[in-house]
Parts: sequence; C-alpha cells; structure tokens
Amino acid sequence: MKKNCMRAIPYPVIQRLPVYHRELTELASRGVERINSAKLAAKIGITASQLRQDLNLFGSFGQQGYGYNVPLLLVEIGKILGLDRTFEMVLVGVGNLGMALTRHPHFRKRGFTIEALFDVDAELFRTDVGGLPVRPLAELAGYCQVHQPDIGIITTPEEVAQPVADILVKGGVSGIWSFSSTRLCVPENVVVENINLIDSLMSLGFRLRQAQGADELQTGQSKR
Amino acid sequence: MKKNCMRAIPYPVIQRLPVYHRELTELASRGVERINSAKLAAKIGITASQLRQDLNLFGSFGQQGYGYNVPLLLVEIGKILGLDRTFEMVLVGVGNLGMALTRHPHFRKRGFTIEALFDVDAELFRTDVGGLPVRPLAELAGYCQVHQPDIGIITTPEEVAQPVADILVKGGVSGIWSFSSTRLCVPENVVVENINLIDSLMSLGFRLRQAQGADELQTGQSKR
Repeated sequence: MKKNCMRAIPYPVIQRLPVYHRELTELASRGVERINSAKLAAKIGITASQLRQDLNLFGSFGQQGYGYNVPLLLVEIGKILGLDRTFEMVLVGVGNLGMALTRHPHFRKRGFTIEALFDVDAELFRTDVGGLPVRPLAELAGYCQVHQPDIGIITTPEEVAQPVADILVKGGVSGIWSFSSTRLCVPENVVVENINLIDSLMSLGFRLRQAQGADELQTGQSKR
Repeated sequence: MKKNCMRAIPYPVIQRLPVYHRELTELASRGVERINSAKLAAKIGITASQLRQDLNLFGSFGQQGYGYNVPLLLVEIGKILGLDRTFEMVLVGVGNLGMALTRHPHFRKRGFTIEALFDVDAELFRTDVGGLPVRPLAELAGYCQVHQPDIGIITTPEEVAQPVADILVKGGVSGIWSFSSTRLCVPENVVVENINLIDSLMSLGFRLRQAQGADELQTGQSKR
C-alpha cells in the first residue's frame, strides 16, 4: 500500500522534470527572463501542448500571451523536484562505480549528499574515498538506525543487490538508487530508481540496428 | 535526415525490449517452456494488451490459447535487439566511471566490446585497464579511421563531452553512449543514448517527496 495517495504524476513527466530544470537553469544563466511554451518545448524535444499539459499537473505557471517567467518557473520546478531540501544517502559497494558516484561533483549541489560508504572488502577499510571512510557492511544496519538516511545507493555486484536492499529497507530508507539489473523486491512504500547499464546499451544497439536498416525487423525473422 | 526510414518503433517499446529479454532469459534458465501474455506482462509491469501490442510491432510471436514459446521468443527478441551481432566500442574518459564500464562483466556477453580507451591524463598512459592500454586522446581520430568502431562511450568531464562527441562523429561512429548531462549536438544519423545520473537522482528525489506527501505539489506553491 502506498502511504500517501497524492495525485499520481505519470512517470514520463517525472523523468522530464529534471530536463525542464536543466534547460531553465541554462536559460536563466544567460539572463533570459521569459520564454514561450513553443520555444521551451522545442528545447526539451516535446510539443508545446505536451509541455503545458505537464506543467498544469503542478499548477498554473504560464500566462497567455506572455509565456513563462524563466527565473520564477526555475524556482517552482526546483521546489517540485524537492531541491529546496536535502537527501542524505549511504552507498554500498565501493568499486569503481561507487567511487565515481562518491566523487561526482554535482550531487551535493542538487541537495543529494553521500554520508557514508560500505563494502565487504577489508582492504578498503583503510582508505578514504572522497573524504569518507569505507565502513564494513556489517555496520550498515546500525548506521541506518542511528542516522536514518533517506536513500541507499546500491553499486554492489548483482548477486548481493537484493540482500543489501533488504538491509537498507529494514534500516528505514525511503528510496533506493540501484545500479543493479536485478529487479529488487521492496515494500511498496520504498521508491526504487534504477539505472540499468545493460538495458541502456541494448537499447542503443537496437536503435543502431534500426538506423542501419536491419530489414529483418520488419518481419521479426532473421535472414541468417 | 534519417538515413533509413524503417517503421519507427516508439522509444518506450525500445526501452522495454531489454526487459523482455531479461525476463525471458530468467524463465528459460528455469526451464519454463511457455508462458501466457498475462503472466509475462505482469513480470514486466505492463498490461497483457500492451505486451501483445509491443510484440506485434515486430511480427507475430504468440499463439491464441497457447501463449508464447519462451526459448523461441527469447531468440527472436535477441535478434531484434541485435544480440546476434557484435558492436565495437571505444571509451573516452578513463576516470572511475570509465574504469567501471571497462571492467563491467556483462557487456561482452551481450555483444558489446570495448576495444580501446582514451584519455588526456598522461599518468594513465602507462596503465592498463581491464587488459587495455589507455591511449592519448590525440590518437582517437586516427584510431577511428583505421578501426571504425560502432559506438563511442563518453565518460569525460562535462565540459569536454561535446568536443569529444565531435571527434567521434567525424571518426564515423554510428552511436554514442553518453554519461554526460550535456545535450550533445550530433547529426541526425548518429544515435545518442544518454545516461544522466543527475536526472535519475532528481527523479528519485521527486518520487520520494511525492511518496512522503509534500502537499505543496498540489498547488505548485511551496508553503515555506
């Protein structure tokens, strides 16, 4: 059961919100004060009507004949995205990917801070990554109890993604940012955002094949 | 101009193809021979009618009253995804993220092989990553001319993503797998698949806020 029954925002709209935010940030940084829906929509790669429909889900931001006030809309979308608050995160799995995320320069700017790192590799316990010590996985449950992080990041090998998710859920995180291609089983009130590298690469492969005119696609049969 | 005008497959369908492939692989590995559309759809989190609609885009795979033959459908979706061919890739930007991708165990299995690594950091030129030497960025153009890779992976800092994309495009790659949040400008016949970490994290933040019932969402106004 979902804990709160707010108006459901369709997932594709949620995915576009950061894009709106980025484009508006760019416009604002160039001193642009206002923009009409057609121009803003074109930047984002959708239609003007889609844009208006998206933004109407959250309130009325535009003005007929004026368009959108860029700095104002930027602030409002920032609020919708929750950029006026911070999210504390823990990361489990300090391999190359985990290190890359820990050292990512822009998460903190957006209010997402990695507060603690966990791994099973004792070699790592003596090292610092991005100024943070690497702690034994065994300490994760206790850490969650004391510090109540909002988000757990999973950058572990595939086979331990689910058990790590279980510890995080038990520890009370509200969200999991998973880089595993395992479909995680979590209670409905825990939000999972998944970055699946293999899926992304396979989509790219498909689109390449399509662009190169692999005509067997049209029948679903390979000619080999 | 698109080089080939095949039937356009909607992007959400393309994104679901790898999910079909993964679920079918899992079913096949458990020896499941057939499955009906309702059950397969439930695994993927869509409706049975959506599933049939998706698969009908590529041919007719199911049989009324029988459902889908799992091993057969797996092979066919593999062909649609282009898993019966290989894609040669080069990677530019050998930081932690670049290293994580180079060492990823599953890309090669899916036919995606990283063949060469490039960076500007001379320190790296003496090291091997995943058995590959790191080459100077200055050699990228020449490498592309000789080896004609299919895909360029961009894991560089933000500010050089576009110039690197320009070199890759000039070098003749058909696709770019970008981890930059910069919207890359490339000719229409070059396919860009983007993994935007910041966008993903912001979506997660939004969904968390939504799940926690931030009621200002309903008016588009913050109460602070």
